[in-house]
Amino acid sequence: MKKFSILVTNDDGIFAPGILQLKDDLSQIGVVTVVAPISEKSAVGHAITLSDPLRVIEVERNGDFFGFGVNGTPADCVKLGIRCLMENKPDIIVSGINQGSNTAINIIYSGTVSAAAESVIMDVPAVAVSLTSYTSKDFSYAGKVARQISREVLRNGLPEGVLLNVNVPPIAEDEIEGVVPTRQGKGKYDEAFDKRTDPNNRTYYWLTGKRMILDFDNDIDDVVVMNNKVSVTPIHYDLTRYDFLEELNKWKLAP
Amino acid sequence: MKKFSILVTNDDGIFAPGILQLKDDLSQIGVVTVVAPISEKSAVGHAITLSDPLRVIEVERNGDFFGFGVNGTPADCVKLGIRCLMENKPDIIVSGINQGSNTAINIIYSGTVSAAAESVIMDVPAVAVSLTSYTSKDFSYAGKVARQISREVLRNGLPEGVLLNVNVPPIAEDEIEGVVPTRQGKGKYDEAFDKRTDPNNRTYYWLTGKRMILDFDNDIDDVVVMNNKVSVTPIHYDLTRYDFLEELNKWKLAP
Repeated sequence: MKKFSILVTNDDGIFAPGILQLKDDLSQIGVVTVVAPISEKSAVGHAITLSDPLRVIEVERNGDFFGFGVNGTPADCVKLGIRCLMENKPDIIVSGINQGSNTAINIIYSGTVSAAAESVIMDVPAVAVSLTSYTSKDFSYAGKVARQISREVLRNGLPEGVLLNVNVPPIAEDEIEGVVPTRQGKGKYDEAFDKRTDPNNRTYYWLTGKRMILDFDNDIDDVVVMNNKVSVTPIHYDLTRYDFLEELNKWKLAP
Repeated sequence: MKKFSILVTNDDGIFAPGILQLKDDLSQIGVVTVVAPISEKSAVGHAITLSDPLRVIEVERNGDFFGFGVNGTPADCVKLGIRCLMENKPDIIVSGINQGSNTAINIIYSGTVSAAAESVIMDVPAVAVSLTSYTSKDFSYAGKVARQISREVLRNGLPEGVLLNVNVPPIAEDEIEGVVPTRQGKGKYDEAFDKRTDPNNRTYYWLTGKRMILDFDNDIDDVVVMNNKVSVTPIHYDLTRYDFLEELNKWKLAP
């Protein structure tokens, strides 16, 4: 039987706990190659590195070779992994396990999801996996979910340009009440800047903010997670708002 | 009559030629505040700055106060402009004029478009404007288009969460054959990495690539631009692939 080839990446960096769990679990269903940023790259969105050269180092964890560290973004890691570091195109790319939720508006800021997006652009099916807590270090159930959903993707395939964005609540496995398809919520941040003065009397600003949930239907990603279920949202990158094209035809667009 | 309040930003940086043209043209329809990155931030995607403080400098161009320079991304500039630098929320945000096209897959890498996305997340209507050439310095017609489309947005409004992504071909005004609504194409890059060795004998990689156009319908952004027309695509950030939810319900998602 052919062994599946799996590329694993993340945005918390190659030394994060979530990617260690992910490699462990996915090694049970295939041969895993890790290509991940050397340092944390959270909230980088879908950035790619054009103005600097990329460099690669071989990284050990627990005394063994673990993977390739790259001085770039998660999207850079996917590009470089597929084009230069792996002999053949992988069968799937799995990104994570992210520390913190990637639901609602977070999806567009997320480096974790952008790695999966880069993957489907390169015609490799992809899954992004997040644990919806900034503090819990127990990635074990999220790892099992990542393995099962990856298995299903390898078995069934995904439509062109589609990835699965998975969010796992940080609770014990026997409290989980299901794994369900969802849609992206409209939740966003109630933000402010904390304005301060540095020791040289110059002003600087820190971004701060609280998450707001703005829609409460039972099939919304954030709502599902609040209800102790794992959320699985199919995501694509045709951003066209089709239902507005007709209205736009009536506008006087030419100067 | 109330004067419109307009926030202008970009990703080529506050000293780029395109943003000078944009401020000039939009000053004819309102009061313009410029908040833009101090240095070039192309291909940053929808990055925001969480790990560093943001700083602001006042920038002069041609001997007059021009705007606020920020050591962050285009999305940072929009957040900071609205929350800290402007007295009231602007009526519209216009991002550009970008040097180079933001069509098809480029939309998801684009700092120019991400500024407009951040704007609609904050409930301010937005327009992103690009000149589809990396070399032409004649932004005058693109500036006129930006002004006219901004006028229409101020008159008609936009649906919640929708921005307009405008791409202007780099040709003379009298060769332009129209300004038309379009949808995002599937075009992407045929990419490779140029692998080199530095003077210290260490390997590094440069990303290189050629644009490919992959769909040729007459309402595709890239096709419209090739046909000497201005492309206007309504864009939104609900990334859910709705038509795959039913299929996903049949999968065995739980481990």
